[in-house]
Amino acid sequence: MSQSEVPLTSAWRRKLHEIIYEADTPAGKLFDILLLVVIIFSVILVLLESVPRLGKLYSEEFIQAEWVITIFFTIEYFLRIIAINKPTKYIFSFYGIIDFLSTIPLYLTFILPGGYNALLAVRSLRLLRVFRILKITRFIGEADKLTKAIKSSLPKILVFLFAVVVISIIMGTLMYLVEGAESGFVSIPVSIYWCIVTLTTVGFGDIAPVTPLGQLLATIIMIMGYGIIAVPTGIVSAEYTNAPKNNDNQVKKNPEYRHVNTQVCQNCLAKKHQDGAVYCHNCGYSL
Amino acid sequence: MSQSEVPLTSAWRRKLHEIIYEADTPAGKLFDILLLVVIIFSVILVLLESVPRLGKLYSEEFIQAEWVITIFFTIEYFLRIIAINKPTKYIFSFYGIIDFLSTIPLYLTFILPGGYNALLAVRSLRLLRVFRILKITRFIGEADKLTKAIKSSLPKILVFLFAVVVISIIMGTLMYLVEGAESGFVSIPVSIYWCIVTLTTVGFGDIAPVTPLGQLLATIIMIMGYGIIAVPTGIVSAEYTNAPKNNDNQVKKNPEYRHVNTQVCQNCLAKKHQDGAVYCHNCGYSL
Amino acid sequence: MSQSEVPLTSAWRRKLHEIIYEADTPAGKLFDILLLVVIIFSVILVLLESVPRLGKLYSEEFIQAEWVITIFFTIEYFLRIIAINKPTKYIFSFYGIIDFLSTIPLYLTFILPGGYNALLAVRSLRLLRVFRILKITRFIGEADKLTKAIKSSLPKILVFLFAVVVISIIMGTLMYLVEGAESGFVSIPVSIYWCIVTLTTVGFGDIAPVTPLGQLLATIIMIMGYGIIAVPTGIVSAEYTNAPKNNDNQVKKNPEYRHVNTQVCQNCLAKKHQDGAVYCHNCGYSL
Amino acid sequence: MSQSEVPLTSAWRRKLHEIIYEADTPAGKLFDILLLVVIIFSVILVLLESVPRLGKLYSEEFIQAEWVITIFFTIEYFLRIIAINKPTKYIFSFYGIIDFLSTIPLYLTFILPGGYNALLAVRSLRLLRVFRILKITRFIGEADKLTKAIKSSLPKILVFLFAVVVISIIMGTLMYLVEGAESGFVSIPVSIYWCIVTLTTVGFGDIAPVTPLGQLLATIIMIMGYGIIAVPTGIVSAEYTNAPKNNDNQVKKNPEYRHVNTQVCQNCLAKKHQDGAVYCHNCGYSL
Repeated sequence: MSQSEVPLTSAWRRKLHEIIYEADTPAGKLFDILLLVVIIFSVILVLLESVPRLGKLYSEEFIQAEWVITIFFTIEYFLRIIAINKPTKYIFSFYGIIDFLSTIPLYLTFILPGGYNALLAVRSLRLLRVFRILKITRFIGEADKLTKAIKSSLPKILVFLFAVVVISIIMGTLMYLVEGAESGFVSIPVSIYWCIVTLTTVGFGDIAPVTPLGQLLATIIMIMGYGIIAVPTGIVSAEYTNAPKNNDNQVKKNPEYRHVNTQVCQNCLAKKHQDGAVYCHNCGYSL
Repeated sequence: MSQSEVPLTSAWRRKLHEIIYEADTPAGKLFDILLLVVIIFSVILVLLESVPRLGKLYSEEFIQAEWVITIFFTIEYFLRIIAINKPTKYIFSFYGIIDFLSTIPLYLTFILPGGYNALLAVRSLRLLRVFRILKITRFIGEADKLTKAIKSSLPKILVFLFAVVVISIIMGTLMYLVEGAESGFVSIPVSIYWCIVTLTTVGFGDIAPVTPLGQLLATIIMIMGYGIIAVPTGIVSAEYTNAPKNNDNQVKKNPEYRHVNTQVCQNCLAKKHQDGAVYCHNCGYSL
Repeated sequence: MSQSEVPLTSAWRRKLHEIIYEADTPAGKLFDILLLVVIIFSVILVLLESVPRLGKLYSEEFIQAEWVITIFFTIEYFLRIIAINKPTKYIFSFYGIIDFLSTIPLYLTFILPGGYNALLAVRSLRLLRVFRILKITRFIGEADKLTKAIKSSLPKILVFLFAVVVISIIMGTLMYLVEGAESGFVSIPVSIYWCIVTLTTVGFGDIAPVTPLGQLLATIIMIMGYGIIAVPTGIVSAEYTNAPKNNDNQVKKNPEYRHVNTQVCQNCLAKKHQDGAVYCHNCGYSL
Repeated sequence: MSQSEVPLTSAWRRKLHEIIYEADTPAGKLFDILLLVVIIFSVILVLLESVPRLGKLYSEEFIQAEWVITIFFTIEYFLRIIAINKPTKYIFSFYGIIDFLSTIPLYLTFILPGGYNALLAVRSLRLLRVFRILKITRFIGEADKLTKAIKSSLPKILVFLFAVVVISIIMGTLMYLVEGAESGFVSIPVSIYWCIVTLTTVGFGDIAPVTPLGQLLATIIMIMGYGIIAVPTGIVSAEYTNAPKNNDNQVKKNPEYRHVNTQVCQNCLAKKHQDGAVYCHNCGYSL
């Protein structure tokens, strides 16, 4: 809230902040697109590397490409820290941690020599970075409405999911007793796994009842699943249908709505500043 | 309705009732949490015990843990009977029976020595007790709305399920005639089982049509199932969408709504007493 | 519309009509329940007879029971013809044909000695008779609303189903070219069958893509199916949500609504007569 | 906009345009039905030709029938070009390209002798021509509403599909690490394929988790898929429910609505001319 903190001293730091954290200038947009390309390229690399035939044939090239990406992310990570006034706030924010995890996998292989494969999962987390880029450019409206509808129907869906789990445990135990190990129901946890496979109408068929009583029980579970699937759908439908519509027209007519840009305060990382705002609405820092 | 019955004579019985049946005091909340932990622990025990490898390795420990749980439930069951004025009403209530069934499995093994495994199902019923704990604490609102929506759409869903069963029987008979025993359609009941597996879009694949005519019929069944699934979903959606909204704001403004606590009348087990109520709204007994 | 036709001459014919076609008198209700039991019993017989083990063991008993049912249905069929003024109208009505088909299977085996098995499907059609009984007793309201919602959304659902079929044919041809006979895609019709299995999210797994390109195509088909399933559901939901509500209260208050009973005109088979109506609202015949 | 272009010089060209492009005259309707029959016949031919047994037995007849259809389509294609004032506009329109692709497969076999099979996919594209015929006759209203509802919910569904893809990539990588190649999770792309199969509740079962941890992850993915499926359904439901109703009655009463016929301007291909219109509403050309 105070302006007593050290302001961004040089013009290039201000410029850097604008390019990396915002998407209103041409340079900012270009940086976002470049970053998006590198992220998607790095994830495709992970996918291809895991294909046995390709992994062996081009193992050299894969590691080289991974080095290029790692160096790019390392530079970007340090630039992000430099371009902001409160680096610790950024470092321990959700996207700060994702950025850090995106950078380190290759460095970790020096410490954990055999862990190259185990780090595949960490490298695929890079995909989460895409959400930040999307967030500061487009889709804000739609994603916001989607998130709201899901959030407001979450307690209902949780009650419902709890009911699904309880049904699965009780029916799973019954199926285990009725079918037994010969049909693949080797233990109650496996039976519960089968029950959820059936209730959700996935139905892999790796395990399937063979006794008449087991098939009757399965029929009951399936019809229950068929009826149950209507519940979360109905909930979300109702949320969407009853949600107040803030059409663009209404927003434009209404003087209380103002267009919000992608600027991020250099001091406190607050977002959604109005067009033409000079000071941060959160901490009063000069934008 | 009369106060002529024997009142709870001592302070500790009142206190006990408060702890076991209610969740408004710290002791009552603690008891609920403890009970929840023991119930979930006992159900996890049932799951792990059924895993062949674990069941053999730790059979001693499993039986010991089951004894601890059984003794805990036995004590709790008797305390529940002591802490209430009309024990028979509790014993033959839904939760009274569940409590009883949760307690006896291990005792039954003395009478039925080989029945230890068969009692797994009874032991998994303990999970139902979780609902009482949830009921007297939170989720009341959401679960209530869910139950109401399901109840009011139940007759419609029943008509629809009846249609599903009729379609399955007629199409099942047709598939049995078309495919025959070679493809796994060994009898009409199995054919009906397959039909429901297909209509509900579960699709295990343990039985699948192989003749062109059978596959054509299967296609028709699947498309019917795809269209039919829309019906219960539409019903529940409409129920939810058209349900009157009792927002918290409306409730707070409206003087006819009062907050309801988790107290249970010691005399008649009536619930949903208003905050600050001194006598039971159902039987007039002092709370 | 005229009363010049021959009236039901004797009291017992009137009585018979009341018992068989209506459900307002105790005798009428009893007859309906008896019929329901016989129908369900005859269908269960068909199911059990098809189980190879039971079919061999009790083949004698099955044929005897089938004879009893056939004789019962034969008598009922002739009584229905006797108890009505215009038998030809009944005979060629939907339920008249179902009744006839329910009666003849066993008689047909004299003409077609080997056709006993093929007549199983005809015998399972008896189940359709259940709908008439339900129709004249309960569930009228719910089933009516259900039928209306489905009817009014039928043109939309047809357009949508046509789209599903077109997508399946084009994607099926592509999958046939990509995967080929080794993966089970032996011909385009089989490929289309697989496509519908996938689009409807049934997913038997009897045929599954194995090439990377085939799996990519399958992924696209599945995501399309996932999006497409929303369409009929949305249509039915909207139909239900926007349908005018004729609550029971409104009906009771509204003097234009009258309670309708299960009487059927002996002359013209018209239904839905008001309580206390003396003449048929359709043909003026005395009820 | 000008009438200075060369008008259709002869009566037969006008007549031809009416028959081929419109469906208001008996001849136009007849042509549409004939075309529909030929298209469906040609697609059925493609399906049957791919069945190995039929393909070998009737290979001669299939090629002869294909020649008849090709000649029919060739003539129709040239007639379409002749009957219109701006042929290039038609040739490069969507349906112009589809018409061209429908005609050439057999001619291409002279250039690509081995490509007969690969052209099956091109031949199945003929099915798309059905949409034009339906468009200019019936179903316009319903299909229009359907298209509108889908279009207006498309951005929401895209955001949601993007979320599905991200979840699949991250969960697919995890499943690959947990299950490994022994259970069929041979690479991350295959793992992602399995993930989408599971999330969309298709569940082929060609690949299924076997380790306890993998089955636990699969359970989480299935329950997520079960919850996620509610989102697009809810979106489409809300779009349909909240869409303004333009009932036929309202349209008829409202003097601003006029009935629109299937005429197509010979000059600019504009559609939806009012009944009785003499000049094209788009270019002023005489209809």
